[in-house]
Parts: sequence; C-alpha cells; structure tokens
Amino acid sequence: MRRLCAIAIGLIAVLACSQQSPQHAQATEPETGQWALAIHGGAGNIPRDLPTEERDAYIAGLTVALDRGVAVLDGGGTALDAVEKVVLTLEENEHFNAGRGAVFTHEGRHELDAAIMDGSDRSCGSVAGVTTVRNPIHLARLVMERSPHVFMAGPGAEAFAVSMGLEPVDNSFFDTQKRRDQLDRALREEQERAGLGTVGAVALDRAGHLAAATSTGGLTNKRWGRIGDVPVIGAGTFADDASCALSATGQGEQFIRHTVTGSVAARVELVGMDLEQAAHQVLFEVLRPGDGGLIGVSRAGKLVLLYSTPAMLRGLADASGRREISIWE
Amino acid sequence: MRRLCAIAIGLIAVLACSQQSPQHAQATEPETGQWALAIHGGAGNIPRDLPTEERDAYIAGLTVALDRGVAVLDGGGTALDAVEKVVLTLEENEHFNAGRGAVFTHEGRHELDAAIMDGSDRSCGSVAGVTTVRNPIHLARLVMERSPHVFMAGPGAEAFAVSMGLEPVDNSFFDTQKRRDQLDRALREEQERAGLGTVGAVALDRAGHLAAATSTGGLTNKRWGRIGDVPVIGAGTFADDASCALSATGQGEQFIRHTVTGSVAARVELVGMDLEQAAHQVLFEVLRPGDGGLIGVSRAGKLVLLYSTPAMLRGLADASGRREISIWE
Repeated sequence: MRRLCAIAIGLIAVLACSQQSPQHAQATEPETGQWALAIHGGAGNIPRDLPTEERDAYIAGLTVALDRGVAVLDGGGTALDAVEKVVLTLEENEHFNAGRGAVFTHEGRHELDAAIMDGSDRSCGSVAGVTTVRNPIHLARLVMERSPHVFMAGPGAEAFAVSMGLEPVDNSFFDTQKRRDQLDRALREEQERAGLGTVGAVALDRAGHLAAATSTGGLTNKRWGRIGDVPVIGAGTFADDASCALSATGQGEQFIRHTVTGSVAARVELVGMDLEQAAHQVLFEVLRPGDGGLIGVSRAGKLVLLYSTPAMLRGLADASGRREISIWE
Repeated sequence: MRRLCAIAIGLIAVLACSQQSPQHAQATEPETGQWALAIHGGAGNIPRDLPTEERDAYIAGLTVALDRGVAVLDGGGTALDAVEKVVLTLEENEHFNAGRGAVFTHEGRHELDAAIMDGSDRSCGSVAGVTTVRNPIHLARLVMERSPHVFMAGPGAEAFAVSMGLEPVDNSFFDTQKRRDQLDRALREEQERAGLGTVGAVALDRAGHLAAATSTGGLTNKRWGRIGDVPVIGAGTFADDASCALSATGQGEQFIRHTVTGSVAARVELVGMDLEQAAHQVLFEVLRPGDGGLIGVSRAGKLVLLYSTPAMLRGLADASGRREISIWE
C-alpha cells in the first residue's frame, strides 16, 4: 500500500487527461427476472505494477465475497441477504478498509461507518463512528429491522448493538500492521488520506427486488468524528425498486455534497435515463475527475461499474453465467 | 406542550382525511434579482386552542428570527449569513427544539444535530450528536468552511468546536422544565416522541445565491445515538443554485428513506418542475400523511411552505415587502 500512495501524485496528471473520454465502464444486461450482483472493494490509485501477492490477495478476497453473494442469489435468496453477506465477507478480510483491516484515525483507533438499504420499501439502516462492532454492516441491518430509526452513531449505536446481543470486540481487533504504517506516514505528513477499500455490493434478486450495502473504515488519520458518504442514504448508498441500487466509493465529501447515489437514481426514475447513462453523467459531469467510483444494478438487472480513478477493485456476476473480477479496465 | 401531545392521537384521524386534498400551501413569486426568505419552527400537531401565552411566544420567536434574516438580506448580505442568523436566533430561543430548549434523550441529556448548505457551490457542513456546543448551526458552518470535511459527529465534532475557539457549554445549559416534563411523560409511556420544533431557514440573496440551514434537538426520549434527517444532506437540508434551497421538519426516518429534499430538488433541476409542484408531489405523494413539512425557495425567489400536519410554525418575507408569520393555514 505504501507504493500506492507514493505514486498517487504522479497519477493526478494522468487522471486529469484520462477523464475527458472516460473508458472505465462495464455494463451487462441479463434477462429480466434473473438475478444480478456487483461488488466493489474501493476505487483509487492502484499501480499496475502492484506486487503479485497484493494483487492476488485482492482478487482472492473479491472472489470469495462474490461467490457468497452468488450462492445467496442463485439459491433464490434475497438481494438484501446477498449484499449483506458480500459486505460482511469483505469486512472480515483484512485487505479491505472495512471491519478488520480498517484504517486508523488520528488518535490511533478505528471508527467504522456502514449502511444497507432494501429497495423493496426503501427501508434502510446506517451506523457511523462505531468502534466495538465487528461487522458494522450487520449492525446497520439491525438498525433497519429492529429499531424505529434508520441512523445511529457512536456509543449509542454500540449500546444498541449490545442490546441486540452482539458481542463487542476491543477496538484493537481492527488493527493491522499495514494500516498502522499508513497512519504513521500520514501523521508524519500531517494529512488525512484516503484508505483505499471502502467495500460495497448491489444486487437484484429473482423476486425482482434490489438492495445495496456499503461499509468503510474511512480515512487514515481522520479526526473530529468525521463521517463520510457511506452511511448517508442518497450519498454513498441507495436502493429503490423503482429505479436502481447503488454503492459508491471515493472522496466522501464530494459524494455527500452532490447527493451522488440519489442523483443517479433520480435520473433513472424521473427522467427515464438508462442507469449507465445516469451514473456516467453524475460521475463524469457532476463530480470531479478522480473523485471515485460506483456500482449499480437496475431493476432490469443491468449492472454498471464505473470509476474516474485509475482503478476500482470490483466484481460482477449474473444468472446468465457471466462472472468477472477486475482491478483495472 | 403537554396539551399538544395529549391530543395528538385524536388528530391522526383528522390527518388521515385531510391529506387527501392538501390545502396547507403558500407560494409567492417575487421579482427576479430580489431577496426572499422562509423560516420554520417545526411542523406537528399544534391545537388551535393553544394557550395564548404559548402561541404568542412562538409568534414572537419567529418574528425576531425573521427580522434578523430580513436585515441581513435587505442589507445586501448573503443567503448563507441570513439562514445561519435565523437558525441561530431560534436555537437561542427556548421555545423551539434546537439549541437551548432542545428535548431530552432517554438518558436525560441533549444531543443536537444541525446542517447548513451554500447553494452557490454545494458546499455544506453537518454535525450530529453534539452535547456541548451552544449553537450547532454555527459549528456546522465551521465544519463547512474551516475543515476538509462536511459531516462530524459526537466527541470528535466537539473537539473540533474547541479547536475553532468555541467555548463549550455544560450539557445542562440546554435544560428546560417543559422538555424535562415531556421526557418524564415519554419515559412513563416508554416511547420516543417527536419534539415539535426542528427549526430551519432558506434564503435567496440579492446576488442570486441560495442557502439552507436546519437545527434540532431530535426526539424526546431518543436512544442509541439516533441521528435524524436534519444533518443528512438531501434528506432534511439541501441547497443548490441550480434548483432550490430546502429545509424540512418531521418524521426524520421518513425524510432520510425518501431523500426528501434531494428528491424535490431533482424534480426541479432534472424534470423542470415548478418548486411548489415538486415539493407537493414529494410531500403528499411520496411521504405519508402527517410525516411533516418543508420550506423552500427557488432560484427565481419563489417561496414554498408546505406541510401535511395540522400546523407548521413558519414565516416568510421578501423584497416586495411581503411578510407573514403563521401557525395554522
């Protein structure tokens, strides 16, 4: 990961040019009534000469997560169960910036955010700034299904987790050496930096319902209880059977300011735009080059994976048998 | 306020009928290039036989806040300064559920949320769950202007406030007997209940820029670090010169789930709908009867104040000399 950061500045110039004619797009249109799934492990500056073992770890992690989601959907399970399972699997994998392996805050701790949304009735659950919950995406689901609320933060959210029977973990459970090294470097340079690896998933199930889930450790060296776009419904996470399901990754502040996933869905629902066109417009005409990426699935099962960064860790699968894991284009 | 709650259940039946042909709408269209301002002090079940002293206190509070916003705008000040001033004035007034006079949480404390957004560049700032900041709306503005972030929560947000030179107040600063009585009753009945009085403002300034601000103490007897729609950009608060500025009040979970202010703005910007039509559609066709209300101003200076509850504390003014304070229709 050190090398990723080291070459980030050099890539800015590349980005500034490459975004003029964005080519980082994938789309597939399975038959209606079938299932479809897209997942991401974060968008950012991943060098093409990434050490083999690191690349293999990303690909293995995405593969396992994709497989688990596919198993749910192919077996007739719900989109909601599929996206939770995918994100929970990535939270458990220390290579991704969510759950174990999350980046460190300025104070050398971890504060995790997550959200899940069920497109069938727009029910949703978000948690922010939790420090003792092993799987924030599961807590987000409990907020959605077992509380009258949709958004909980900090110690209150943790008390709710305990009341739901979740065993708290010590905050050090999330520690990894790679992330500590990133914090040490960020502290020396006195800046917060993006921790590549927000994770997310979107799915259409056989019953025709959509769902989205996103989870993150946020920014290395973040301060002041910063909350990013992940738990903000309509920013980093959104699902509505009337339009699409979306999960974003990137510069959280930009995704909040431009209500990114809500704006994409509005283009689909209100203007009748194709999901790919809608996502493309928001990512490349509203946001700035390099701000990030998003994955989406339409109610017809069309999958869209778009990013304005050099790379996005991602995967897709659908009932037609298509199955892909990718990092660069 | 006891009486407000006491008759709330009785009003539900009225609500269920009255929403079929909503008549609670106000709209005015001043000349382009002029200023316009709308403010609210919460929507809910305010009985028409409200004690005179209570009604007078609401009207006096709204009048002072409106006057201060008008002074900013009429003097050529910015929409951003005007909405901050209005909301700060209402936070200082103990009759409204924001700042001093905020409702109590389950634990007998106060956790405040606020957000502000500048339509000229969609910059924004939100704070959630702050307990020691006298004017959360001012902290939201500092988050927007003096940090790289847009959303901060809890102790982190309070540490940021101190770093910005804000003097912390003891949480008991927000205590009032009326709100303590409400908590005692809610605890006996073992339920959370809406504390009427989220406050907000939207404005168009002479330079043609829009801004919105919202602040709240949330729900009486709330638990688990619950965050409502107020600090969620695109739910309770939104501003964009390309469309409109909006501030909402009501059942926060519904406003998050339906990305209410973002959805209204999308109808204006993407579909070309009139602001009043857009707000009406979301409030009466997307949301449930009785969910709440919202105020908005278009870039042409059209003011919209809509609610699906029996009443909304509100005021409006514009450069043509129009000036109104209302509770019921």
